[in-house]
Amino acid sequence: MIFSERIKSMQFSPIRKLMPYANDAVLKGKKVFRLNIGQPDIETPELFFKSIANFKETVLKYTNSQGMDILIDSFIKYYKEWDINFEKDEILITNGGSEALLFAMMAICDIDDEIIIPEPFYTNYNGFSEAAGVKVVPFLTKAEDGFHLPKKEEILKKITPKTKAILISNPGNPTGVVYTYYEIRMLSDIAKERDIYLIADEVYREFIYDNLKYTSALYMTDILDRVILIDSISKRYSACGARIGLVASKNKELINQILKLCQSRLCVPTLEQVGAASLINTPKEYFSRVTKEYENRRNILYDNLSVIPGVICEKPTGAFYVIVKLPIEDAEHFSKWMLTDFEYDNKTVMVAPAEGFYATPSLGKNEIRISYCINSNELKEAMMILSKGLEKYKSIF
Amino acid sequence: MIFSERIKSMQFSPIRKLMPYANDAVLKGKKVFRLNIGQPDIETPELFFKSIANFKETVLKYTNSQGMDILIDSFIKYYKEWDINFEKDEILITNGGSEALLFAMMAICDIDDEIIIPEPFYTNYNGFSEAAGVKVVPFLTKAEDGFHLPKKEEILKKITPKTKAILISNPGNPTGVVYTYYEIRMLSDIAKERDIYLIADEVYREFIYDNLKYTSALYMTDILDRVILIDSISKRYSACGARIGLVASKNKELINQILKLCQSRLCVPTLEQVGAASLINTPKEYFSRVTKEYENRRNILYDNLSVIPGVICEKPTGAFYVIVKLPIEDAEHFSKWMLTDFEYDNKTVMVAPAEGFYATPSLGKNEIRISYCINSNELKEAMMILSKGLEKYKSIF
Ligand SMILES: Cc1ncc(COP(=O)(O)O)c(C=O)c1O
Ligand SMILES: Cc1ncc(COP(=O)(O)O)c(C=O)c1O
Repeated sequence: MIFSERIKSMQFSPIRKLMPYANDAVLKGKKVFRLNIGQPDIETPELFFKSIANFKETVLKYTNSQGMDILIDSFIKYYKEWDINFEKDEILITNGGSEALLFAMMAICDIDDEIIIPEPFYTNYNGFSEAAGVKVVPFLTKAEDGFHLPKKEEILKKITPKTKAILISNPGNPTGVVYTYYEIRMLSDIAKERDIYLIADEVYREFIYDNLKYTSALYMTDILDRVILIDSISKRYSACGARIGLVASKNKELINQILKLCQSRLCVPTLEQVGAASLINTPKEYFSRVTKEYENRRNILYDNLSVIPGVICEKPTGAFYVIVKLPIEDAEHFSKWMLTDFEYDNKTVMVAPAEGFYATPSLGKNEIRISYCINSNELKEAMMILSKGLEKYKSIF
Repeated sequence: MIFSERIKSMQFSPIRKLMPYANDAVLKGKKVFRLNIGQPDIETPELFFKSIANFKETVLKYTNSQGMDILIDSFIKYYKEWDINFEKDEILITNGGSEALLFAMMAICDIDDEIIIPEPFYTNYNGFSEAAGVKVVPFLTKAEDGFHLPKKEEILKKITPKTKAILISNPGNPTGVVYTYYEIRMLSDIAKERDIYLIADEVYREFIYDNLKYTSALYMTDILDRVILIDSISKRYSACGARIGLVASKNKELINQILKLCQSRLCVPTLEQVGAASLINTPKEYFSRVTKEYENRRNILYDNLSVIPGVICEKPTGAFYVIVKLPIEDAEHFSKWMLTDFEYDNKTVMVAPAEGFYATPSLGKNEIRISYCINSNELKEAMMILSKGLEKYKSIF
């Protein structure tokens, strides 16, 4: 039996594909520090579980396709705190930011249309675009520039008549970059001049360090009809397993069109929406505490990582990832070897090979992505083990 | 700003698009009997809520992309009771049967490939295929044949080099048909002879009346590598809001390919999976009670419906829907009018215009779909109101 070209050309998740080796290692009694995945260890606010426990209906019904009113209202309230004003018919609740991305692409792109994305980028942008039959056109951002954007000309070069949007993650996964006002302004100008959309994936909005100021694409008031916001509670409230996200835009007709896609899959889970709606009442203190915690981890990670011989990385300023260049040739081989063949004191480290975060073939081959979602002491130990692993690996290969 | 042709060609859900009128009617103080949607009024087994309340982890994490082990195991156990044997790597948990359908289409079809479907069919098959860039090729089934399949030749006529699968819902939404062994056998022969897949949407498996015997596509042991099963707990356990479904196949490599799509959207909600896994312990008595209840409603509906002057319908034998021909021209206009302009004793009825369940233009224009998800007394009253409404409508238009 044959499969579609579309599915064959998709890749297995570079973040998840080493999972079986990690599970094997655990079965063999090894402790594995999981730095491969953006799964925070921070507790989910109790509010979430409590409101679900208080759900008293006896029939678990479908909800509205656009999402429950209480949840949309709570997002409207949340955005107000960021000086962003949304109305009810400008927001659609989705199965995580993931579904929001897929729906946004489908709504603005036909087959073979193009979306331009700074690379390295969140690897699943590839998955959604392949599923939707859309072509990703990357433009390069570099570690030595802290993964900030290149000059406007460089980006303009990538635009063709088939280009429908620029897609950014800000703060960036996997780069940790936080774009400046001027960068967001430049992208907005491009969107305007070339009559394309700007898809702003802002799921890490709260995770900004060094007192940087955050610039949402929604602050660019002259292009609001072309900004498509992707958002999610996964990281913000450490509620990844809730799968609650949204797509929003001041372009009401776009939202109305995307509603058709929402209707076809009926709705998003009821209980998770109830839980998510309650999160608006999370005390402000939660965010300051969590952000401080990540900033601290970022510091520890960077301090312990940058001293490993041959390792090259820039200090990230947002999200909880860093792209690291290793003094080896094949980071995927190394990452797998760390799980299957290496241990230090019966412990090892799992990272994500970075190649899958690039669309340009051959880029990122000697890079990994590290996620700092584990506590500081473990991070320190993990960096020590990574260093020992690298040393041994270099002595063998 | 422009939208994709793909999204523009999608339709709003014919089941849901009259919702605003129904909500308006309710606001004006009318009682609306909702016969438009397959939202059962049966209680969700308490087990579901209890197991979620017992969830004790403090971080709500992503789960495996293929679904949690406990849930997959519980499905394996469930299928055993139907004499269907699945192994762990033959099942992927999805966001309802809805996502399973989208993923199945994407995995076997490239753009402009074709899937043949007996019409009328579950309207969202259109939505998923449009989203996936796949063409639906319908072949007609008729009320006067109880919506059973036409002769093999009629189906073969529709097959082209681009045909990748036959898709059926068995029992059928919106027809209520239950295919015989010979019909499933015939489809299997076609799949084999023409080297295509058979996608079997069996989400209503339990809802069979008149002591009919059920034939799953998975009973055709000679074509198991080409059967793709779509399933869901939505109707089975009246847990529509849980959004838990699955795609399964004995073709392990197909499942492995679809896993890529699962990985790109990360996972299905954690708590809902925990709840769903507990449902395997639902006492058998639940199903006999529920099936009896629906069978009884079916009888009452049919008895009260078939006596309305000018109404034509066959007695359905499965699921909880019936397609009804009305003695009017435009069923959508009538359905809307019932909500906006009609009332009897301050009550009215909401139905789904059937046109959206057909792919062939102009078919179904004078038909509606009625779902019997409300209790018998209400059903009786609703039929009386429908009859009064028809009478009045005919006197005006
Ligand atoms: C940049 C970015 N966007 C979107 C997502 C999707 O997250 P979710 O589907 O959990 O909301 C992620 C998850 O890691 C991400 O890193
Ligand atoms: C035939 C059929 N298939 C699939 C579905 C999808 O159901 P869900 O996504 O709730 O599992 C439905 C829902 O009504 C249906 O009627």
